[in-house]
Amino acid sequence: MSVPEDRKLVLGAYLSYGTGHHAAAWRHPEAVADGAQNIAHYVNIAQTAERGLFDFMFLSDTPSVFNDDDAGYGSRVVVFEPMTLLSALAMKTTHLGLVATASTTYKEPYNMAREFASLDILSGGRAGWNMVTSSKSDAALNFGLDAHPDHDERYRRAAEYFDVVTGLWDSWDDDAFIRDKERGVFYDPARRHQLGHTGRHFRVRGELNVSRPVQGYPVIVQAGSSHDGRELAARTAEVVFTAQPTLESGRAFSRDLKSRLSGYERLNGDVLILPGLCPFVGETDAEAQEKFQALQRLIHPRLGVSMLSDLVGGFDLSAYDVDGPLPQLPPSNGNQSRRTLIERLAHDEKLTVRQLYERLTVARGHAVMIGSYRRVAEQMAEWLTAGAADGFNIMPPYLPGGLADFVDHVIPELQRLGVYKRAYEPGTLREKLNLRRPASRYQKL
Amino acid sequence: MSVPEDRKLVLGAYLSYGTGHHAAAWRHPEAVADGAQNIAHYVNIAQTAERGLFDFMFLSDTPSVFNDDDAGYGSRVVVFEPMTLLSALAMKTTHLGLVATASTTYKEPYNMAREFASLDILSGGRAGWNMVTSSKSDAALNFGLDAHPDHDERYRRAAEYFDVVTGLWDSWDDDAFIRDKERGVFYDPARRHQLGHTGRHFRVRGELNVSRPVQGYPVIVQAGSSHDGRELAARTAEVVFTAQPTLESGRAFSRDLKSRLSGYERLNGDVLILPGLCPFVGETDAEAQEKFQALQRLIHPRLGVSMLSDLVGGFDLSAYDVDGPLPQLPPSNGNQSRRTLIERLAHDEKLTVRQLYERLTVARGHAVMIGSYRRVAEQMAEWLTAGAADGFNIMPPYLPGGLADFVDHVIPELQRLGVYKRAYEPGTLREKLNLRRPASRYQKL
Repeated sequence: MSVPEDRKLVLGAYLSYGTGHHAAAWRHPEAVADGAQNIAHYVNIAQTAERGLFDFMFLSDTPSVFNDDDAGYGSRVVVFEPMTLLSALAMKTTHLGLVATASTTYKEPYNMAREFASLDILSGGRAGWNMVTSSKSDAALNFGLDAHPDHDERYRRAAEYFDVVTGLWDSWDDDAFIRDKERGVFYDPARRHQLGHTGRHFRVRGELNVSRPVQGYPVIVQAGSSHDGRELAARTAEVVFTAQPTLESGRAFSRDLKSRLSGYERLNGDVLILPGLCPFVGETDAEAQEKFQALQRLIHPRLGVSMLSDLVGGFDLSAYDVDGPLPQLPPSNGNQSRRTLIERLAHDEKLTVRQLYERLTVARGHAVMIGSYRRVAEQMAEWLTAGAADGFNIMPPYLPGGLADFVDHVIPELQRLGVYKRAYEPGTLREKLNLRRPASRYQKL
Repeated sequence: MSVPEDRKLVLGAYLSYGTGHHAAAWRHPEAVADGAQNIAHYVNIAQTAERGLFDFMFLSDTPSVFNDDDAGYGSRVVVFEPMTLLSALAMKTTHLGLVATASTTYKEPYNMAREFASLDILSGGRAGWNMVTSSKSDAALNFGLDAHPDHDERYRRAAEYFDVVTGLWDSWDDDAFIRDKERGVFYDPARRHQLGHTGRHFRVRGELNVSRPVQGYPVIVQAGSSHDGRELAARTAEVVFTAQPTLESGRAFSRDLKSRLSGYERLNGDVLILPGLCPFVGETDAEAQEKFQALQRLIHPRLGVSMLSDLVGGFDLSAYDVDGPLPQLPPSNGNQSRRTLIERLAHDEKLTVRQLYERLTVARGHAVMIGSYRRVAEQMAEWLTAGAADGFNIMPPYLPGGLADFVDHVIPELQRLGVYKRAYEPGTLREKLNLRRPASRYQKL
């Protein structure tokens, strides 16, 4: 894949949890421990991201308690609801895109379409929707279901859901509203369209009671990496957020996803691939390592063991010595391949339980870069030029410092390397990302 | 009912539709015709309400196009979604309460609980929930239902819904979050509660992934006036918004509702009754009349007949003589109490269809006061002292002028009469309204 001379990294700021992505982030001396629900703190970090010319901020979501542990050591339990938070932050930022995760499994498509259209309009065209099917089975129990729908069913539902939501966004043509005070004509009824959708999962008449979003549709983001997830992304996504631990895996993923686009009459530039990246940075490599280790030491062993127990498929490791080896695990019907990888890692590198959880909980499978500002900037540029990424979704390990350091020191290095913009372009999020504005399905050709 | 010397009017600013409550408001020379989705305009009117020391702003809602007409003459077709709009306005106001209408029929209780808790926290305790069952049957068709559930069923569902949502708000005790960085303890697991609700309409496990709202629960508002609606309000509501065209009807309603409170171990002061009030004001009575008539002349006849059809529950009146009497209406599943009021009015005053829509589209059954600033202030004070209202939900006929005039001229008259505050009290909306903060159901006595 050839990279044009002037290609720039697209950057998202993944600002969920309020305290940052590291499991012990909230214990950092600088941390705003109640950051997950502290609006002044969120205004501060959103404005910091905007100071760093980030293209957007990103919020993950699941409609249930995240539940790192049940004993009180995990901080990721209560958070702001994303649509309300982003609507508030829209009034405190000017250029920053506002991307919320929302599940096609647990919210009615009419409500979803309304909320995102409304956010897009009130923010002047800055909304993005990270469309997920939810992978946490806990959520089902909050919505009257006995169990989470299975993978295939969730993806069939998601595909139909996408058609319903975009159909509702097309309810009113871009030029439907005439507002002729003299004649008393507010809109043109010929430019108003009832969807009349009847499908396997949904029956939705329409119209939407919000006009067409400023961007036509909010920017469509997706994060699925299964076969079904990649196909849905190839058909519908404009930004793909993905967990890729290495440049090589990033390149393979990028190549695979972009190869699927032609099946849907889409071009390479129609989709931006953004791996997650958790950066630990400092003046020197040594300082960065020191900051990293200081956070690692703050992981409460009961939290670390609880998270590791979950990663190996729900086997409770709390009875074992945290500084002893990983015990022999009984057979499991959980994620067998991940468990085998973990067992092999423990065996090959002779890791204790503590060393294992320290290794595995840093960024939940996303890339981790630890080094000087310059080194991390160079590595990021390398992913871009190698075709492993169009940019990154930056996961600050702690907040606000982990983001502010990145903005103040890594961003200038990226600019010096010529791989990052020096000012915002005007226009909507879509225009800034150079994504085309989708035409309405009712538009005359 | 005796009124203490220092009793003050509670005022809401009912700011739906953006252009104001009069059907022709958008044609007013000063109107911001795209006001319904113009965020700068909404910031302006919310700040105007705050300048007038309004206790809260209020947004009605239905998850479907409001549909005054299908021919392009009605302006109330596209609006901001309330939760996103109020979250945005929370960042541009300081004291103003933020009350959104949301239907128990068309949103999952887990999502509802999250959104309102989030709004309450990000606004510093200013959220209110106007809990409705939705009376528009159109909405059903946007949610996969063949027909709107019937009145009784909607109210049974609403009662259970209320218990689920408040139960979710109690998921975390007020003091659940310890956040002890030193010991690494984020919360106390003993102060975390799974709801485990299994009822006729809902099965919801919990916990909510948002902490307990600042106000315990957002202020609970209701607007139902049927028997079931009044009973639900007597059990659960803290503010009742009601359509009462006259002081006498307001007094009867107030007496009836307050008489029901003892059945639920509640006191008079636990519920505030706020009739809607559409004020047309001027320096003199004549100027006010002139402003009123100017707007009335701007109602397009096709729009007027269409709106009346809607007000009587969706019965199409366009085939009837606009200068003839209201025809006999068949039974309806819509807002029965409102239809009965309209039929009685048409009969008692022998009004034609045209006269009826001219009368009713002004404020859809709510009180209308037309007169000088002083006269309207005196009438408002009279409702208070007569026990017909604890305050009003003010429905500006047009915007921004209809609100700004009220703030600049009627508010000072009310203050001179001693029935309106001269500054905001500190604290949450609940504290400002002198409503007690509800204890969690898990609180030890």
